[in-house]
Amino acid sequence: MQAPLIDNLQYANWSEKVFRQLRGGGVDAVHVTIAYHENFREMVANLEAWNLWFERFPGLIFKGTTAADVRRAQETRRTAVFFGFQTPSPIEDDIGLVEIVHQLGVRFMQLSYNNQSLLATGCYEDEDPGLTRMGRAVVEEMNRVGLVVDMSHSAERSTLEAIDHSTRPIAITHANPDWWHPARRNKSDAVLRALTNAGGMLGFSLYPHHLAGGTNCRLSDFCEMAAEAASRYGAENLGIGSDLCQDQPDSVVAWMRAGRWTKAADYGEGSADAPGFPPMPDWFQDNRDWDNLRDGLRETGFSREETDGLLGGNWLRFYETSFGPA
Amino acid sequence: MQAPLIDNLQYANWSEKVFRQLRGGGVDAVHVTIAYHENFREMVANLEAWNLWFERFPGLIFKGTTAADVRRAQETRRTAVFFGFQTPSPIEDDIGLVEIVHQLGVRFMQLSYNNQSLLATGCYEDEDPGLTRMGRAVVEEMNRVGLVVDMSHSAERSTLEAIDHSTRPIAITHANPDWWHPARRNKSDAVLRALTNAGGMLGFSLYPHHLAGGTNCRLSDFCEMAAEAASRYGAENLGIGSDLCQDQPDSVVAWMRAGRWTKAADYGEGSADAPGFPPMPDWFQDNRDWDNLRDGLRETGFSREETDGLLGGNWLRFYETSFGPA
Repeated sequence: MQAPLIDNLQYANWSEKVFRQLRGGGVDAVHVTIAYHENFREMVANLEAWNLWFERFPGLIFKGTTAADVRRAQETRRTAVFFGFQTPSPIEDDIGLVEIVHQLGVRFMQLSYNNQSLLATGCYEDEDPGLTRMGRAVVEEMNRVGLVVDMSHSAERSTLEAIDHSTRPIAITHANPDWWHPARRNKSDAVLRALTNAGGMLGFSLYPHHLAGGTNCRLSDFCEMAAEAASRYGAENLGIGSDLCQDQPDSVVAWMRAGRWTKAADYGEGSADAPGFPPMPDWFQDNRDWDNLRDGLRETGFSREETDGLLGGNWLRFYETSFGPA
Repeated sequence: MQAPLIDNLQYANWSEKVFRQLRGGGVDAVHVTIAYHENFREMVANLEAWNLWFERFPGLIFKGTTAADVRRAQETRRTAVFFGFQTPSPIEDDIGLVEIVHQLGVRFMQLSYNNQSLLATGCYEDEDPGLTRMGRAVVEEMNRVGLVVDMSHSAERSTLEAIDHSTRPIAITHANPDWWHPARRNKSDAVLRALTNAGGMLGFSLYPHHLAGGTNCRLSDFCEMAAEAASRYGAENLGIGSDLCQDQPDSVVAWMRAGRWTKAADYGEGSADAPGFPPMPDWFQDNRDWDNLRDGLRETGFSREETDGLLGGNWLRFYETSFGPA
């Protein structure tokens, strides 16, 4: 069977248009964010909105919970939608909710976003004391039920401790190496080596703030970074988590950054001059542009097999061993 | 394969002792109440408590969500535990929660308990205006996802309208005919005929307030009632929903009756003189007494096949067609 195309992080303003573009662009599976700062009940309301979309567009999308669902998506020419949280806020202070959200189909959870959480530290804090007591307990519970630890927004020490404490491979679903572009959200060589040595996955981000050159980053530069990363960490541990936030108004990036934790503006990766979503690079405007990336990777020297892995095969293999009980 | 033993309503004070008695008594499946007046989040806390029990006692119990789980329980000599609500309070005012609670494994929901709900009327109200607007919408959604409508505590008109409005057979999980014992919770001949004509199931209750003679009801009287019911409604539409509330303190029956809706005492089927749980009849003290019931039914003239149906086969057949999407 043909290798699947998997994007392991998007947060679009979902609509029939976007669902059609996903399928039109050949995306077989997408991991979507369903919570930033929501508590449990608010996150459930987001699940309900997804259930309505699944009911309305059964010919385009369905809920994915297992690796087999990716194959089913390929066979039925639809897109399997996998759920994840960017903060642990939906489990509140209640470890029992880890199994509950897994039963509801959630498959990825970040232990922290930009700030300190009950579990771990975010990459915008001044101090990173590492995994908390609850953080260690929750990682064990996530390992037990099959909810993947995602450290995309977490700080260095917390990330290293999560890799170490987890008995199953974890993921950094959307970030790039900081040796390519030293953004606060990008990851150190030490983190990426520890991650991939333990069988974990890195999803390259296409979000302009994570790209050398930002919106003007050239496709060839991005692909050369990927080639260097493959030589350091192994191509089989790499995939894509585009962080595509298509059609979102800027109010949404304000919610992502400031939630309810501050009354002031927090610009995160932006600035007072550029507080909104940055424009995507011209070679990846939306889901119709995956062929550009495929061509770029091939031209940089990746084999067809490696390219298939980077664009989905590696995530599929990770899904196969990550979503069930330990 | 041997016919399964299914009790389609219990609300014990769950413990390892009770789980061992369930298995010791040969109970292959039990439908347990997990919410009376809880809102969604409080009901989820009850699910979490059950998840802990499943994790602690995997050799005795597991969560049941399909008819196949009853067979799996027989094969592995455990008890499959199916979840239900006695009020619709866990779905709050939010129809999207119907699918969410089904995804969490809930398989039965009463549209009302003793009082008026957002959906229907309870059997202790003076007036019964029938299904509400939301009630009709929720019945349709329950039909769509495979959540069984249960009218055990509902009033007459609401029950008849639920039977009529539902496109799938419904259940009265725990009640008896009022021609045998005219308790407010028992059901009219008109309701039971409409229920069973539409393929629905009645589970006979062994709760003393539902029995002619109460705690002192004789086994033979109960079984003769069952024989008369079989002649009127067909033995294949009958089963057991014992309403066993083993080891519960009387504070629990106070919660069941008064919830948070009144500051006064509400005695429900009890009275100021007898406000607590009544003692069970001597022939059904707990799950070790199913053989008494089996013997009584056989002595009353039920065939072996009919008795197997009454004690579980009929519920299994109902489970087979009720728990999946329409």
